[in-house]
Amino acid sequence: MLIVMDMHAGPAEIEAVCNEIRAHGLIPHEMPGAQRTAIGITGNKGSVEAARFESMRGVMRVIHVTAPYKLVSREFHEDSSIVKVGNVPIGGTGFVVMAGPCAVESVGQIDEVAERIKKAGAHVLRGGAFKPRTSPYSFQGMGLEGLKILAAAREKHGLPIVTEAIDSESLDQVAEYADMVQIGARNMQNFSLLKRAGRCGKPVLLKRGLSATLDELLMAGEYIANEGNPNIVFCERGVRTFADHTRNTLDLSAVPFIQRMSHLPILVDPSHGTGKRNKVPPLSCAAAAVGCDGLIIEVHPHPDAAMSDGPQSVTPDQFDDLMKRVAAITTVVGRHMN
Amino acid sequence: MLIVMDMHAGPAEIEAVCNEIRAHGLIPHEMPGAQRTAIGITGNKGSVEAARFESMRGVMRVIHVTAPYKLVSREFHEDSSIVKVGNVPIGGTGFVVMAGPCAVESVGQIDEVAERIKKAGAHVLRGGAFKPRTSPYSFQGMGLEGLKILAAAREKHGLPIVTEAIDSESLDQVAEYADMVQIGARNMQNFSLLKRAGRCGKPVLLKRGLSATLDELLMAGEYIANEGNPNIVFCERGVRTFADHTRNTLDLSAVPFIQRMSHLPILVDPSHGTGKRNKVPPLSCAAAAVGCDGLIIEVHPHPDAAMSDGPQSVTPDQFDDLMKRVAAITTVVGRHMN
Amino acid sequence: MLIVMDMHAGPAEIEAVCNEIRAHGLIPHEMPGAQRTAIGITGNKGSVEAARFESMRGVMRVIHVTAPYKLVSREFHEDSSIVKVGNVPIGGTGFVVMAGPCAVESVGQIDEVAERIKKAGAHVLRGGAFKPRTSPYSFQGMGLEGLKILAAAREKHGLPIVTEAIDSESLDQVAEYADMVQIGARNMQNFSLLKRAGRCGKPVLLKRGLSATLDELLMAGEYIANEGNPNIVFCERGVRTFADHTRNTLDLSAVPFIQRMSHLPILVDPSHGTGKRNKVPPLSCAAAAVGCDGLIIEVHPHPDAAMSDGPQSVTPDQFDDLMKRVAAITTVVGRHMN
Amino acid sequence: MLIVMDMHAGPAEIEAVCNEIRAHGLIPHEMPGAQRTAIGITGNKGSVEAARFESMRGVMRVIHVTAPYKLVSREFHEDSSIVKVGNVPIGGTGFVVMAGPCAVESVGQIDEVAERIKKAGAHVLRGGAFKPRTSPYSFQGMGLEGLKILAAAREKHGLPIVTEAIDSESLDQVAEYADMVQIGARNMQNFSLLKRAGRCGKPVLLKRGLSATLDELLMAGEYIANEGNPNIVFCERGVRTFADHTRNTLDLSAVPFIQRMSHLPILVDPSHGTGKRNKVPPLSCAAAAVGCDGLIIEVHPHPDAAMSDGPQSVTPDQFDDLMKRVAAITTVVGRHMN
Repeated sequence: MLIVMDMHAGPAEIEAVCNEIRAHGLIPHEMPGAQRTAIGITGNKGSVEAARFESMRGVMRVIHVTAPYKLVSREFHEDSSIVKVGNVPIGGTGFVVMAGPCAVESVGQIDEVAERIKKAGAHVLRGGAFKPRTSPYSFQGMGLEGLKILAAAREKHGLPIVTEAIDSESLDQVAEYADMVQIGARNMQNFSLLKRAGRCGKPVLLKRGLSATLDELLMAGEYIANEGNPNIVFCERGVRTFADHTRNTLDLSAVPFIQRMSHLPILVDPSHGTGKRNKVPPLSCAAAAVGCDGLIIEVHPHPDAAMSDGPQSVTPDQFDDLMKRVAAITTVVGRHMN
Repeated sequence: MLIVMDMHAGPAEIEAVCNEIRAHGLIPHEMPGAQRTAIGITGNKGSVEAARFESMRGVMRVIHVTAPYKLVSREFHEDSSIVKVGNVPIGGTGFVVMAGPCAVESVGQIDEVAERIKKAGAHVLRGGAFKPRTSPYSFQGMGLEGLKILAAAREKHGLPIVTEAIDSESLDQVAEYADMVQIGARNMQNFSLLKRAGRCGKPVLLKRGLSATLDELLMAGEYIANEGNPNIVFCERGVRTFADHTRNTLDLSAVPFIQRMSHLPILVDPSHGTGKRNKVPPLSCAAAAVGCDGLIIEVHPHPDAAMSDGPQSVTPDQFDDLMKRVAAITTVVGRHMN
Repeated sequence: MLIVMDMHAGPAEIEAVCNEIRAHGLIPHEMPGAQRTAIGITGNKGSVEAARFESMRGVMRVIHVTAPYKLVSREFHEDSSIVKVGNVPIGGTGFVVMAGPCAVESVGQIDEVAERIKKAGAHVLRGGAFKPRTSPYSFQGMGLEGLKILAAAREKHGLPIVTEAIDSESLDQVAEYADMVQIGARNMQNFSLLKRAGRCGKPVLLKRGLSATLDELLMAGEYIANEGNPNIVFCERGVRTFADHTRNTLDLSAVPFIQRMSHLPILVDPSHGTGKRNKVPPLSCAAAAVGCDGLIIEVHPHPDAAMSDGPQSVTPDQFDDLMKRVAAITTVVGRHMN
Repeated sequence: MLIVMDMHAGPAEIEAVCNEIRAHGLIPHEMPGAQRTAIGITGNKGSVEAARFESMRGVMRVIHVTAPYKLVSREFHEDSSIVKVGNVPIGGTGFVVMAGPCAVESVGQIDEVAERIKKAGAHVLRGGAFKPRTSPYSFQGMGLEGLKILAAAREKHGLPIVTEAIDSESLDQVAEYADMVQIGARNMQNFSLLKRAGRCGKPVLLKRGLSATLDELLMAGEYIANEGNPNIVFCERGVRTFADHTRNTLDLSAVPFIQRMSHLPILVDPSHGTGKRNKVPPLSCAAAAVGCDGLIIEVHPHPDAAMSDGPQSVTPDQFDDLMKRVAAITTVVGRHMN
């Protein structure tokens, strides 16, 4: 931590700050400058609250220096981690694709999609059984019934499944039926749910919140890891900005940033990231090119009849084409489709 | 709903859209313009998914016309509602102030604050027993013990209490001990929690999410109302923007907007809205002047020693002064301090 | 400046950074911490480019400590400045109101407005002769003819005038005819125009850009001051965010921030700040309550027939009412209507 | 345009709106719905101001249907345009790369960079002679001297040059010496400069403003086109958001959107789009994969000694490597490096 003093701060004010630092068992480092004095603090193991200093006389600003996450941090764990979902590894030089409809609607729908995405080369089947919807009057998902449909499709098609949990009840059910538990963007800072996900025994797909900084995303991962679950995969899915030509603004620079700061894998979701079917193929290619560990894409056999998020789902034919391009791009950036 | 066709859309494409509209039991209204055709849709009771039309040939854009919330909407309930917290009415021409520390820390702290804020004219005691914190290593609140401290302060000082619930377990406890249940910004779209709050039997203080539009805030209120709980109070507490001089950007225009669209009251939280102690008094005055139904303010007897959010808490002396100014301003805008 | 080293940075890397600091004639202050080393830099008069250090081996982050503005800064000029527009002082404990139509449209329109706003207690007449419009097909203002209409209104009604300059040609004309030159939000970082405004001999009203931080606003003021013109008045007029219920999000916390960092006055523009007529009166009251030095408000005798920005203009009758409320609020916060 | 009436609007209010529509020579289309009436308007050639209707009794909302740009619009010009810079075509299936330092610093620097980027396969040399800088105390560019250095490099290396104009004076000089005039992000809505660029006789590279919507970017292009200059190339260079891990948030979805709405080419600038050297190569690959028409990249022989924006410049060696990857990706998405 660094404390920047006001230009007019005198020796008494500087001394008071140094004493307060010592009172916390820490060491002050005074740096008298041409215009003002700054005071560095060392000796802290973790979290001195800036509050202690911010309101002292003569203090202009308190600056945090060290990132507060540890378990998910590459500084503490240099080698990249590989997270296994069923028998599918995520991370390393392989590239993974998760695909399926926004919501599970019927046995036939899932069966049709699973067959098509498997044939196209996808590795994991996605589909929502519990749907967080902005309106209470919108379709809220099939619940447990949807989980059973997904589990049956796994047996039939040999694809591990990932699906979202929205509260502690659904999390227990998802952890029982699915191979990977998804925590959605709106729950990225639902800390109770994160803790529970940290104890659920299954790998977790953690989506970035709509207005979350990447430090916050990493801290949310830290909640899960801190409960004993190291199997975390991050997911960039677009953030909310003033831009109105897409539903969200997909922030692909998150990928190299997360890869530099964390040892954990990161996927990209171009479906929610754009909200527009015709933007999913180009942004899927862009995500592969930026070097992410994989994609999660909404595919629906009949998107115009979908019960939720139809406009951002691609058709199986579009998905076939997209997979070919993505596979070609992964090889350019030193990866290979799993 | 309005469907705008591409300039080059021909009669066949327009006819196909009209047929699809009729297939949903609705009525198309064709409007051939100089450059393009638009097609209005009437007859829908609620929610036709735009998905059905957005991806048809020749369609350029689909525009939603009607707001999807009903129970919280002023169009469906013209008169302003008054929500009672304990014996304190919120709404109408009265002005209410909720105050107290960010987190409950001890009996003595709450007792000291309660006495001071009551004397200064506040109406409701606030204090967090369950704290949603960005880091798993930060103080997470006293839990049930904190609720009991708050409840004891209510008996002693005669102030109803409001405190935050962060999951279904804490919500049940909060509903038992407190007079009003707070749903925090990070949980504004935790739909499971909203539904449960709708069945908890206590009034709910619903804070705007960090990147929530006001339509989304109203829809979150609709989730609560739809479960049978009409006692909802909204709260503007700042949103996340690029601006870096405050922790959040307090959006005071939310107040007249919500008052026009909804019959429910709206408070302002200048503490989280700015994150800086020295900005709380001026923004409290501004909030009163914009016409909100009340304030919720963090007050701590010794903010520099606070276990959370100290830098945004005012001292009891600052609060005394602030209350006088706020009371004077309410009278200018046709209200009165309760 | 503070340089934060990577956890794994060794003595050689630390030494290299220290040497580079010394090579710039500055003094390094090494602070070895429990987890990493930080290096403070003192001795710099102004602007060492972070670039020099950011890409050296072992450097994790470079943190700027000192704000780069001087002439507009309160640290360099403790007493609040008063800027005179004609004979109207802006700053101090007085409160000033500028009012008038978005665009000058005719002699009669300006005459009618000037009479009404003067009677209501406004101090300065505003009106655009050169209009920056998003579309080339929109009304672009009356130009020089408009300036002459404003100047005639000044003689007749005894109100100084403020109007916008959009390029060097219009700036010369505006400086000749008006009492104050406005630099609009879209030109806040048109540095050529700022420099010219710094040499124009008239006070400048500098509006915050749509996505400008307050540091950038202050730096834009520094451009003007650095050319020799100390008569600068800042103006908060709303910023661009995801929020869609108003045209912009009015950031009233800018007022206490600017007042703390700078000795120069700051006004608020609730007309552009909201873009909605019915939000102008409540936000005008809020701006007065937050402690700004004055308001600039769009008033049009017949807003529905206005040639630009009609929906955000209030009528003269609404303005009368608004002025009474604003005057009452200024007294609560220790000011008085001039 | 579509006018949505309030639920409680009666026949008189609806009739008044219809009469007002007719008074403007337009045709109202009444659509009585289950809950409310909407009124479509046809017959308008261009721009009816919404102002006329927004404040009438019973009107809830006015919705614009038609985009206001024409000359840059694909609806009016279906085939993709190719813009020539010197003898280099931009658009079509070719892919173009512009590269060079942020600022021209010396003959040797430009010569060294030009040789390296040409060898690596770049097509156009970039370099700033007039620099818009946030601080008046930062290096402002070499001006005319810089232009002459660029022009000499063109002769020697056979690369057309692009450089930024920041005001009318510099624009005249840039148009004389350069092959393409750049309008920077901060000047995207400097309408006087846009008009002048529209008359300068050279192709224009128009960068998206820091908080500009894509409709506004297209409208800025319309200003240039409307003065008779059809040779416009758009450039996505990142927008300002809350995200703090990069200098700006690069919005790659802008590429397919602009390509759908306009016939003009669009480049991507990953240097300003991220502000971090180590993010330039991955985001360059991503931009190529999303299907843009080319890149503009900052390359400096010694970025740590650069006089501006060093931290976002790549070295010539990094550029060599980047060009190989980008070339490989262009072929995957159906293009070829020019």
